[in-house]
Amino acid sequence: MSKDQKHQGQERQEYPTSRNLYFIMQNQLSFIPLGGVGEVTKNMYLYEYNDQILIVDCGLGFADETMLGVDLLLPDISYLLKASSAGKTKKRIVGMLLTHGHEDHIGALPFLLPQLPDFPIYGTPLTAAFANDKLKEFNAKRRVQSVNFNDSEKSIGSFSFSFIPVTHSVPDTSHIFIKTPVGNFYHGSDFKFDDTPYDAKLTDYAKIEKAGATGAMCLLSDCLGAERKEKTPSDINLTQNFINEMKECRGKFIVTTYSSNISRLNQIIEASEKNGRRVCFIGRSLIKAKEVARSLGYLNLKKDIEIEIESLKNHEDRNLTLIVAGSQGQENSALTRIANGEHRDVKLKEEDVIVFSSDPIPGNETSVYELVDTLTRRGVKVIYSPVTRDFHVSGHGSLEELEHLINLVRPKKLIPIGGQYRHMFAYKKLAEKLGYKKSDIFLMEDGQELLFSDGNVKLGRTIPVKNVYVDEMSGEELEGFVLRDRQKLSEAGIIIILAEIDSNNGQLVGNPDVIVRGMSAASYDAKRLNSRLTQDFRKALGHRGRVTNWIYVRKLIGETAERRIFKDLRRRPLVLPVVIEV
Amino acid sequence: MSKDQKHQGQERQEYPTSRNLYFIMQNQLSFIPLGGVGEVTKNMYLYEYNDQILIVDCGLGFADETMLGVDLLLPDISYLLKASSAGKTKKRIVGMLLTHGHEDHIGALPFLLPQLPDFPIYGTPLTAAFANDKLKEFNAKRRVQSVNFNDSEKSIGSFSFSFIPVTHSVPDTSHIFIKTPVGNFYHGSDFKFDDTPYDAKLTDYAKIEKAGATGAMCLLSDCLGAERKEKTPSDINLTQNFINEMKECRGKFIVTTYSSNISRLNQIIEASEKNGRRVCFIGRSLIKAKEVARSLGYLNLKKDIEIEIESLKNHEDRNLTLIVAGSQGQENSALTRIANGEHRDVKLKEEDVIVFSSDPIPGNETSVYELVDTLTRRGVKVIYSPVTRDFHVSGHGSLEELEHLINLVRPKKLIPIGGQYRHMFAYKKLAEKLGYKKSDIFLMEDGQELLFSDGNVKLGRTIPVKNVYVDEMSGEELEGFVLRDRQKLSEAGIIIILAEIDSNNGQLVGNPDVIVRGMSAASYDAKRLNSRLTQDFRKALGHRGRVTNWIYVRKLIGETAERRIFKDLRRRPLVLPVVIEV
Repeated sequence: MSKDQKHQGQERQEYPTSRNLYFIMQNQLSFIPLGGVGEVTKNMYLYEYNDQILIVDCGLGFADETMLGVDLLLPDISYLLKASSAGKTKKRIVGMLLTHGHEDHIGALPFLLPQLPDFPIYGTPLTAAFANDKLKEFNAKRRVQSVNFNDSEKSIGSFSFSFIPVTHSVPDTSHIFIKTPVGNFYHGSDFKFDDTPYDAKLTDYAKIEKAGATGAMCLLSDCLGAERKEKTPSDINLTQNFINEMKECRGKFIVTTYSSNISRLNQIIEASEKNGRRVCFIGRSLIKAKEVARSLGYLNLKKDIEIEIESLKNHEDRNLTLIVAGSQGQENSALTRIANGEHRDVKLKEEDVIVFSSDPIPGNETSVYELVDTLTRRGVKVIYSPVTRDFHVSGHGSLEELEHLINLVRPKKLIPIGGQYRHMFAYKKLAEKLGYKKSDIFLMEDGQELLFSDGNVKLGRTIPVKNVYVDEMSGEELEGFVLRDRQKLSEAGIIIILAEIDSNNGQLVGNPDVIVRGMSAASYDAKRLNSRLTQDFRKALGHRGRVTNWIYVRKLIGETAERRIFKDLRRRPLVLPVVIEV
Repeated sequence: MSKDQKHQGQERQEYPTSRNLYFIMQNQLSFIPLGGVGEVTKNMYLYEYNDQILIVDCGLGFADETMLGVDLLLPDISYLLKASSAGKTKKRIVGMLLTHGHEDHIGALPFLLPQLPDFPIYGTPLTAAFANDKLKEFNAKRRVQSVNFNDSEKSIGSFSFSFIPVTHSVPDTSHIFIKTPVGNFYHGSDFKFDDTPYDAKLTDYAKIEKAGATGAMCLLSDCLGAERKEKTPSDINLTQNFINEMKECRGKFIVTTYSSNISRLNQIIEASEKNGRRVCFIGRSLIKAKEVARSLGYLNLKKDIEIEIESLKNHEDRNLTLIVAGSQGQENSALTRIANGEHRDVKLKEEDVIVFSSDPIPGNETSVYELVDTLTRRGVKVIYSPVTRDFHVSGHGSLEELEHLINLVRPKKLIPIGGQYRHMFAYKKLAEKLGYKKSDIFLMEDGQELLFSDGNVKLGRTIPVKNVYVDEMSGEELEGFVLRDRQKLSEAGIIIILAEIDSNNGQLVGNPDVIVRGMSAASYDAKRLNSRLTQDFRKALGHRGRVTNWIYVRKLIGETAERRIFKDLRRRPLVLPVVIEV
């Protein structure tokens, strides 16, 4: 230790000066989730050390029913944009690491990368391939670099990291062990511990344990399964169930599943081969995932097994397996079109069997069950969970596996990620049961900074993060007020008031016109409303003479109308005043 | 057989005349579900014989997320209104029978009775009490007559009927055995076979069997549980679970459940008594249900056990049980207000426990889980299904019980009711397994008539039934086009075009004004859109001279704008043209 450093250390205890504060900052790591805590999707986490920022994941969120006309959400990167722009405290994004190839971990890349400066991005082979396919599709220039699990530890800036293989519902899923000058983080994103995975690619328990032995200041852990007691079952048993069900089926065997679940696709292909069925992929997302996985050798799909949709008519139904996109009941998906009898190449017959090899994502229950009903109406046999649990198992570990990870890593502190608040809470209960103190477990909110230094952790800034809505078609962001307007419009409709005002004396000319949309005709007496509004406007306008401020007049008309409408109709539609100068 | 009758019978085979057709009609019963098939709610069924109509149930439907700003749906009674109005074929509603006191079986009474002529309405005591309470609240004059299970068979018109006690999640639930001149119907609405119900009021298996022995032409059966294999568990075990959980709890014990589940309320009260806790009811619907049930002696609530909300502050938290309305995450419910910290009298503390003694009704998952998250954020322990199944069991029978009912009734024909199509389909599979032919089981749609005569059944008319939306607050109906407008508004917003047209020459004056709401500013270039619209309008209006038809001009402006907006923005907002005559 140099004299100078020692001096700083002494001063620090007694006279905190700006120089000393800088010293303190140097020994501090700031962890900020921009998305992914208190919610399952939209994963994005920042590790900040001095002027360096390392990002983990860049995922999409999915809109719920309250977000009208919106399909997708993005992590709010305002903080990153500000922090990385010129200025005294300018920070540098040194790199980004991707844990696995699911939309809620890589899906925001094409939307957010174009806004950010250049930096290297790393992911395991399939993760990189899925991400790059997406970037190409959006004409984005950046690419993700492929990293193998047995590559040696890499460094970017003051950070170094290694990828650790774990099992999940997409191949090449990894946990990331991140070393920082302040301490080591085990970033344990989505996983389960499946010891008999279909692709025989096992979790590297030894590598996890070794990481833990190096010393882990903090474990970030998937917590989505923290309410389930039993170990999550292995996927391996599903293959035999597919084989048996296909054997029984005398018509087309139709399966829908998540496109990225390559092992599931392999299981369906194997079962089809054993039953002498040819396999056809239907739906854009599925075909893309199939191509990417196949090009990397992850898909065991022999040339003569696959057939194109155009050739379906040359085969007997009982020799066909169709793997179809649309397991969530999406409006324009292949499966929905098939169910509605609107698909050109696939028509349902009574002997067909349809298997949902998936669960409804929370929020999609209504559309999934509606699709099941529509399919059932066509007379086909529909198999779906939770009625049958033979064709799908979760990709997330249950309490037993979460406990196993804690025991392997043996971290000082714990942060549950990738779950709703109730899952985070259940994870906390688990950690307490294992002997952790309440103060060692952090249930975070998006934007909440945690400061790690000298083995201590404390809450830091609260960085404001807002909902960023994106229009899937155009990629444009939607402002929050637009959503609020839509909410109002959808609940109570709109009333447009056209009022002619004489610019000479500021008086109403004649009666206003009232146009109503999205509101029941029975809910108001148009004539009465009109005459009441006329009265109110006359009174509100008073005798103000020549109009100089039209904005004020418009506002006055709007507010007066809103008051009257609420008073008489007990409703709050969107009121839009249009003032016409005459 | 009189000579005349015999003569008719002979004629009928050989020379069908109008007189004979009348004869055929006389031996025919028409069954028409106006709601309740292919859906769980909105139950209403018509039994029509000659000019007589007997109605069973009059229930509400609940709006799903696609029905914007709508809370409730009603059965469409257009057919009833038309059939019972004056005319040659005028029919008479002879009466209405109510199976049990749930909203989806009695909730539409206050909305529909005022539209219908007078007729007697019968229900078991609690059913009648719940219905009458509702009718009083809406200031409706009609009342439901109370019938006891041991009353002898009653007749109205050509029908006679008897109520048969079955177990379900509200006391006094009944099946109804209906005798018609054409044959007997066993109307087996919602039920489970719980042989140890908390209130010890058992299903009267002997009465069911006796009805079956009389000969049942058709069994209508609840089918909601037809996808579940095991027998639905008894409610009885829940009491001990409540006792245990309350003992553990060191703070307030808060339970939310369906207000009509009186047995559940009794179980919670018993558990509270055993734990020395006083009970407080919070929320309007719960308090009303409590009062009705208590006045009939159905609620075992001693005076000194209950406390009013104002007295909560005089008791220690560990001596309190709060039974709170809002198990479905309803926006303005007591529980939501408590969760948000907005309830005046109830503030949450960390030692409090909250139990959802209920399941999310399909479609409510998002709001229920959001409420669970909000409560969890307050640090309290939240217990809810499906994570824990110890505090709620379904009120609907599973396959075993549905089979049991078929075996007791031994009907010729079967109609599953009160389920989605997938449940009806599963019921059909059960019936086939039991040896029924496909042609003996009818999977119906609302408005589909079934004609029963001489042991034969055939499809009759398809009576058009539409969705009838109702505004809960005002009780007014909402037209379908209003919903469609709201859908458009919520998905893509609204664009209002103000175009000034010279009445002398039909030409556009200046540029149109374009007002946009509910649409992202980033999604269009306002200036460019305006100039394109100006061009398009000029072209569309042409040189038409003095304006004679303003409606035509308005339509022209609207359609031209819609085309341009879709072409340039690829969006379909609601386009509202306003033409100003100058």
